[in-house]
Amino acid sequence: MIKEQIRIFCPATIANISCGFDVLGLALDSIGDEMVLRKVPIPGIKITEITGQDLPLETDKNVAGVAGMAMIKALEYKEGFEIEIHKKIKPGSGIGSSAASAAGMVWGMNQLLGGPCSDPQLTEFAMEGEKLASGSAHADNVAPAIYGGITLVRSSSPLDVIRINSPKHLYASVIHPHIEIKTSDSRKILKTSISLADGIKQWGNLGALIAGLFQEDYALISRSLEDHIIEPVRSILIPGFDNIKKAALAAGALGCGISGSGPSIFALSKGGDKATEVAKAMSLELNKIQLNHDTYVSVINTKGIRILP
Amino acid sequence: MIKEQIRIFCPATIANISCGFDVLGLALDSIGDEMVLRKVPIPGIKITEITGQDLPLETDKNVAGVAGMAMIKALEYKEGFEIEIHKKIKPGSGIGSSAASAAGMVWGMNQLLGGPCSDPQLTEFAMEGEKLASGSAHADNVAPAIYGGITLVRSSSPLDVIRINSPKHLYASVIHPHIEIKTSDSRKILKTSISLADGIKQWGNLGALIAGLFQEDYALISRSLEDHIIEPVRSILIPGFDNIKKAALAAGALGCGISGSGPSIFALSKGGDKATEVAKAMSLELNKIQLNHDTYVSVINTKGIRILP
Repeated sequence: MIKEQIRIFCPATIANISCGFDVLGLALDSIGDEMVLRKVPIPGIKITEITGQDLPLETDKNVAGVAGMAMIKALEYKEGFEIEIHKKIKPGSGIGSSAASAAGMVWGMNQLLGGPCSDPQLTEFAMEGEKLASGSAHADNVAPAIYGGITLVRSSSPLDVIRINSPKHLYASVIHPHIEIKTSDSRKILKTSISLADGIKQWGNLGALIAGLFQEDYALISRSLEDHIIEPVRSILIPGFDNIKKAALAAGALGCGISGSGPSIFALSKGGDKATEVAKAMSLELNKIQLNHDTYVSVINTKGIRILP
Repeated sequence: MIKEQIRIFCPATIANISCGFDVLGLALDSIGDEMVLRKVPIPGIKITEITGQDLPLETDKNVAGVAGMAMIKALEYKEGFEIEIHKKIKPGSGIGSSAASAAGMVWGMNQLLGGPCSDPQLTEFAMEGEKLASGSAHADNVAPAIYGGITLVRSSSPLDVIRINSPKHLYASVIHPHIEIKTSDSRKILKTSISLADGIKQWGNLGALIAGLFQEDYALISRSLEDHIIEPVRSILIPGFDNIKKAALAAGALGCGISGSGPSIFALSKGGDKATEVAKAMSLELNKIQLNHDTYVSVINTKGIRILP
């Protein structure tokens, strides 16, 4: 039976994952927004409530609104939706805050309409929301939110999303230092060209990481979590990055890097206990430099967005 | 029982495979050299016979000799070997002629000595032969010859070779146009920097290709066999390349590109019959421009070098 109203969980996501700049992403489970969506006979989308953050209620200024309207337009749907957004993911944290809202919106609408759209279609609609948020219609956060698990965006145009195996003992630790880095700024500092030698290292590592994920070879995953291109440039914007990374690896993390465009830093570990130790070690480094932060530990969320009871 | 003499098959190999420049390689089965190796009580390596090609018999000028001496030195082995090399793979063809000799040599020695060395060690010794042949100690041809199947060289130093799944219906078609391109020349024309945008495409494709190979998803393998970096530059050195590639794809190949540094062109197909059709279509294009060539069709050789009866 198709429901008239649903409450959903919209996970935070980690994009890039060291060697997978602009292509890889994964969904978290312990941190995410909640949204309530209701079918109404009035055309369009009305945002009735936003809690947790001060974000625009106007449909065309809100990433969820814009993503939802892209779907309504494509389906030529004549009625509409009311939504509530309960933000738990802080905007600008680098763990896919805008993606959670955009992806949650269209995924929830699809549920209420009986599932007319495929995951690739939903991803394209959600990318319209991302375009509003950051100026570019990227899929590396919305894809893992919608597909669940770990995703690789082979191409954005035409969109080609590939679901990658998530080894079951793979956990993420995330720390969000309370500083502001705009996605647009952290893009601007990147060079538009790279050395061929660094490129070869990067695709060698990404190919090996994908192999490690399919083979559930944690040692190979660990060796492959290297980024010689983006991290050396962007990490300059994050106070204490080098020490935090050292601490994560010393505590036994498989790898550590910048989540999306930062400032959040993620580490991957084998097992939840190890991920908790790693998170503590990272947190300790931020305490040393008296930088407030949030800390999360999560298994990889293989389902993506889900309906809450 | 350890034998005193063996005859072995040393396969030709395809390096790069479109999006895997400098990291990917695969072993062929229908084309390869033969070598005979004998344990003798005299120290060092003596090349007693080379047939099929005019190559140096002096140990220190021959890739097999150099690779073998690297192994003898590492093992501090006090006796030696006599070898015969029966070349079927033409030097300079772009399908791993030097790699077959270097890899065959050390693999065969390892058999005669009862297997003291691991595949990574054998690969390192064989790379010394490659260094003599092309000036750089690369592993992208010797690794698939030694490991068999499809290999990814995540890093050359320290060496890290990963075996990738070979889907069982995957076949290669190879045409070798009779023109000369030196590996060193085809390296020189490459730019030392690339755009970040092209890099992202390349690692997106390589990640997707690895996923496609593990999932045996031929459509995904096909979509991923793209190279926006090396092929546009190197293909200029191969007469008729664009038409040959078009013909291969029109005949139903999954993908088509330059084998190693060329001039050979490879295509991958699902099934042996399709690969034969594709080879014919490629051959026809070379006939049109009256360019002599050899044509090969082969399943992926998952064993690598093997002992012949």
